[in-house]
Amino acid sequence: MKEEKSKIGIFDSGVGGLSVLKQFIKYLPFESYIYLGDTARVPYGNKSSETIKKYAKECTEFLLSKNVKLIVVACHTVSSVALEEVEKVSAVPVVGMIRPATKSALIASRNKRIGVIGTRATIASNAYQDYITQNSYNSELRVFAKPCPLFVPLVEEGFINHSATKLVANEYLSDFLEMNIDTLILGCTHYPLLTKVIKEILPDVELIDAGEQAAIFSLRLLAENKLLQEEKDNFLPSPNVEFYLTDMPMNFKEIAKTFLGFEVDKIEIVNLSGK
Amino acid sequence: MKEEKSKIGIFDSGVGGLSVLKQFIKYLPFESYIYLGDTARVPYGNKSSETIKKYAKECTEFLLSKNVKLIVVACHTVSSVALEEVEKVSAVPVVGMIRPATKSALIASRNKRIGVIGTRATIASNAYQDYITQNSYNSELRVFAKPCPLFVPLVEEGFINHSATKLVANEYLSDFLEMNIDTLILGCTHYPLLTKVIKEILPDVELIDAGEQAAIFSLRLLAENKLLQEEKDNFLPSPNVEFYLTDMPMNFKEIAKTFLGFEVDKIEIVNLSGK
Repeated sequence: MKEEKSKIGIFDSGVGGLSVLKQFIKYLPFESYIYLGDTARVPYGNKSSETIKKYAKECTEFLLSKNVKLIVVACHTVSSVALEEVEKVSAVPVVGMIRPATKSALIASRNKRIGVIGTRATIASNAYQDYITQNSYNSELRVFAKPCPLFVPLVEEGFINHSATKLVANEYLSDFLEMNIDTLILGCTHYPLLTKVIKEILPDVELIDAGEQAAIFSLRLLAENKLLQEEKDNFLPSPNVEFYLTDMPMNFKEIAKTFLGFEVDKIEIVNLSGK
Repeated sequence: MKEEKSKIGIFDSGVGGLSVLKQFIKYLPFESYIYLGDTARVPYGNKSSETIKKYAKECTEFLLSKNVKLIVVACHTVSSVALEEVEKVSAVPVVGMIRPATKSALIASRNKRIGVIGTRATIASNAYQDYITQNSYNSELRVFAKPCPLFVPLVEEGFINHSATKLVANEYLSDFLEMNIDTLILGCTHYPLLTKVIKEILPDVELIDAGEQAAIFSLRLLAENKLLQEEKDNFLPSPNVEFYLTDMPMNFKEIAKTFLGFEVDKIEIVNLSGK
């Protein structure tokens, strides 16, 4: 029996990263996880890059103190504006959201017209747009980006299939029809929950779930470095996750279940800013 | 000529308090103001009362360091769950949102059926509900409270008259019709901007703008304590306000203009959590 290796650390500005954790559990079910949500300072998406970098550094240091073998930056905003800061601080590999999602979009797109949606900070950073352009050899490639700030609060309010959400989605997304994109990167942790609504407006567009792509990317990275847990014959009755939050939000349990599909019982509250 | 007295300090979790500042400028145009928005940690409305108390204390200490003569807690969430903490720290008078709005609602209501809307934290604290009940001698009085978490992001996205906002408002408010309220307290700084939409759903209900009531309340408080600036014959070309934020949000200037009606030029960024 191989020696047990350490855990995978995932951090996010809040609860949204749970949709990324869900994908990791799906692709890497024998791993143990540490999830950190900075719920005391959520959301990051409308804040300045300086503030986001400071918060990201504090989250990274917390996960490193837990001796993780991999850091997953589940927050697209942090992945867009502060990935370098995280990599600078971290002694273990770091996986952000941009690279895996972009790679997958470039492979998926036939007409080389790719859309990206995300928070204000993610879109304004141009991280997705630049990464896509830099990694394509096709000079015809076009990227269309659009911030969708209301999607996060709508999901957190549970308005997943609400007619108001459909109106907002139509406002944000209908331009993509004219732009004739065939692939759309869901550049925010909350957006995969709106897949059905988005599909109604853009039925012929392939949606890229960045969390899923990051999980597949990490599977390969950990395997190549011989850092994966051994596979077992039986799955655990429930996934092995330690949850840390910087604040207990009012409706956390409901939201967690929406994102993860299972109940979260034990949560530890930690303080990052005092350090 | 009387000696010049110090400024009025107003703090909020973010930009919403600018709607309160607007009311103060209207009723107290000869005063000078210091506005603090904790934009690095906004919003408070979905956070725990422990975290809200900590943040409120830090905001109060900042305003006190600026030598203000009055502290206005523009944030309804703080007014609901942390007003005592602010009063404990402050050597100068403190005006919150609950008391002035409640008093006005009790006077306005004829049928003694009062509605309150606010953030999740404000409504869950029962601060409005308790204060209304405690201050009414009418045992028939009924209070109906409802959290409306999506109103804040809708206003900040500029969806003031959008059809999605009308659908959300209808979802939140239509129950009040059956409850037969005749008065509704707008228990959040952002809600006065939705007056028109709310009026469409509740045309016969009197809306109480808590910021306006707090300004009138402060006018009396300062006058009784001889702390008002002397009235001048001419109004200033622009109001005398110093703006401090803990982070510069992406779309601050637009939002500020929506809330205040005038442009904000000079903003200083300060750090509260490092103290």
